[in-house]
Amino acid sequence: MIASLEKLVELLTTLPTIGRKSAWRLALHLIERPADEVAEIAQAIVDMRTKIVKCRRCFMYSETEVCEICASARRDQSLVCIVEKSPDIFAIEKIGRFKGVYHVLGGTLSPLAGITPDKLRIPELVQRINDEHPSELIIGLGGSAESETTALYLARLFKNTGIRITRLARGLPAGMELEYVDQITLGQALNERTDIHFGE
Amino acid sequence: MIASLEKLVELLTTLPTIGRKSAWRLALHLIERPADEVAEIAQAIVDMRTKIVKCRRCFMYSETEVCEICASARRDQSLVCIVEKSPDIFAIEKIGRFKGVYHVLGGTLSPLAGITPDKLRIPELVQRINDEHPSELIIGLGGSAESETTALYLARLFKNTGIRITRLARGLPAGMELEYVDQITLGQALNERTDIHFGE
Repeated sequence: MIASLEKLVELLTTLPTIGRKSAWRLALHLIERPADEVAEIAQAIVDMRTKIVKCRRCFMYSETEVCEICASARRDQSLVCIVEKSPDIFAIEKIGRFKGVYHVLGGTLSPLAGITPDKLRIPELVQRINDEHPSELIIGLGGSAESETTALYLARLFKNTGIRITRLARGLPAGMELEYVDQITLGQALNERTDIHFGE
Repeated sequence: MIASLEKLVELLTTLPTIGRKSAWRLALHLIERPADEVAEIAQAIVDMRTKIVKCRRCFMYSETEVCEICASARRDQSLVCIVEKSPDIFAIEKIGRFKGVYHVLGGTLSPLAGITPDKLRIPELVQRINDEHPSELIIGLGGSAESETTALYLARLFKNTGIRITRLARGLPAGMELEYVDQITLGQALNERTDIHFGE
């Protein structure tokens, strides 16, 4: 009935988590918001999409050709954590304890879906490791089957480089009751059990 | 960490139904969408906000000075349905059976909150009725206490104009089991019970 309103609703429903009802609610809210605030939101969308590129070295989202982390003198540039995607880096950075740098693969291996090593940033990783000779590679991938396959692939790929290769610990998530932990996690927590050290 | 991304997330959380998590998810989705699609979404937001004004006569959202409904020769211009807000009109129009026109009040009376008749489009309604002498006013307000107050106020206001004044029927909503209907609704459904007419 009102073309510009219907077009916006149509476009909003193409976004994740936004159904028809939410799209209507958002559009109707925007009509009642001051015009300059609405223009600011639209501009922020365009700005973000145009400003963000991928870091030339680690492929993380960045507004500069080389990201802040790769450019920082306070980061250990020889400690490289391999992750699937940029949001994984945001999650690690939030802890504020990791002092190394990253490498974003852009996905995980899935030969059945046609995602072979050359489809990810594995050639770039190989090149980077040849050039930089880092001291340690931390495989920072999740717990899915594809992640495990990818971790194994990477571990084998770099086995003979003399570089220390580690992966994130497997075990019980914080706050989880034993009763509700799935069998695979519980099995891994048992396998990778750690010694309790008593202080003096 | 990435200024343009964080700014967008900040702005998105000011929208209804969008919390911090959804805002992040939307922003990260937009980074991966083709730039022209993202620009189209931003443009649609600005377009809608700039194009939509309020109809000079009925105050419904419209892209033209007088809305399609007020300008239509196929609508009964002397049958005026009074509603609280434009979305209420969208709901009535969806049924596709109402052939009259509308008047948007822009809210409901709430003296305690300082919403007196002059804060709504009641003076404009009085003027319109004096000018147009419609044959019937349908008070199309909801079932809240403020709506009931407003309906009563309007009914009294136009009592001596000789215009037929009606309101939407009260009763059981479709599909509702009697057992779960609230007492007020059930009371209204009893009070306003209708005769069953047998064919032949």
